[in-house]
Amino acid sequence: MIFEYLYVVKLHSKYIEAAVDQMASLPGIGRRTALRLVLNMLNRDEEEVKKFAEAFTEMKAHVNQCQQCGNISDAELCRICDDHRRDQSTICVVEDIRDILAIESTESYQGVYHVLGGIISPMDGIGPNDLNIGDLIKRANEPNVHEIIFALSATMEGDTTNYFLYRKLKDLDIQISALSRGVAVGTELQYTDETTLSRSLMNRQPFAG
Amino acid sequence: MIFEYLYVVKLHSKYIEAAVDQMASLPGIGRRTALRLVLNMLNRDEEEVKKFAEAFTEMKAHVNQCQQCGNISDAELCRICDDHRRDQSTICVVEDIRDILAIESTESYQGVYHVLGGIISPMDGIGPNDLNIGDLIKRANEPNVHEIIFALSATMEGDTTNYFLYRKLKDLDIQISALSRGVAVGTELQYTDETTLSRSLMNRQPFAG
Repeated sequence: MIFEYLYVVKLHSKYIEAAVDQMASLPGIGRRTALRLVLNMLNRDEEEVKKFAEAFTEMKAHVNQCQQCGNISDAELCRICDDHRRDQSTICVVEDIRDILAIESTESYQGVYHVLGGIISPMDGIGPNDLNIGDLIKRANEPNVHEIIFALSATMEGDTTNYFLYRKLKDLDIQISALSRGVAVGTELQYTDETTLSRSLMNRQPFAG
Repeated sequence: MIFEYLYVVKLHSKYIEAAVDQMASLPGIGRRTALRLVLNMLNRDEEEVKKFAEAFTEMKAHVNQCQQCGNISDAELCRICDDHRRDQSTICVVEDIRDILAIESTESYQGVYHVLGGIISPMDGIGPNDLNIGDLIKRANEPNVHEIIFALSATMEGDTTNYFLYRKLKDLDIQISALSRGVAVGTELQYTDETTLSRSLMNRQPFAG
């Protein structure tokens, strides 16, 4: 830590220090990596650096959240909510945008989404009020909605959030489901953890032959 | 690879695509990590994103290379070349700026530096003409220079570069030295590779007791 600090102090350039600070503000980028990236940037043409910088300001200026689901969108509604071939009566609740991308890449879901923007995590100081839950309840109350699918992480935080949402939604006349949990496809049984294994035993399915 | 590609195509936002492209242009940042960083950026205030972007354009506009050694500098000479308490007769040849930082953090070197901007590496298409070698020869020919220290990586490329520089400098009346190589301090002998071990045996030093 002290070594990292020296690394920056010794630079004696407030401009590089500022750039390193900004780069290190990204998640998972330490000061040492940040310095490496910043020096790489310093070796580029002025035009290239400008292009790099503008990509982010342009993105921030033009990309919005979908008014309905919270997905990223260049327009008011995202391309999924705006697509009338999608089943608008099924809402899949996800933690963040990357989960939409992951589910979309399976090409096996035809409904729409709702992005919570996180999951309940007291350790990280994230409570229900920090999430986009109010809008979900509102959407669930619309007459055309028939099913809500919980697609949150299979962690304690995900389970807590699922349970919280379930209590809010259970009195409505809609089906509530969650992603199935079990042995991951392609996994050898001996490497599957005990909790997953005992759960997938409990939830065993009739074999379709 | 295809999966990564889908990840971006499915975004349907040219602005996010452009930002991911730029982020992924940094060394060691893949498209998936780039997307994660870009989404983090997207969650920030407009003001914060502007600050992030400006840090790089400001840096590029204001940070120069030291006219003498190639170190980074806000002025014409870097703070090391400009420091008259430093021994201007000893020049330590390094590959890049980070090596200066590493040596400076030892607080055991009082001379000045020369940044080559790389090492000879045919695999990467880097030859002697791509490096800041001409200026080094020029500096070595100045009457006040007494010693040149090679402080390049202990790799084949570093050795090749050392040898190339040595041939260019050997006829001058200056001392040429190189960092000592041997067992790294704090390393257990059994984990030291054979080349290092045999070399440090050959180069064994009188024990000072």
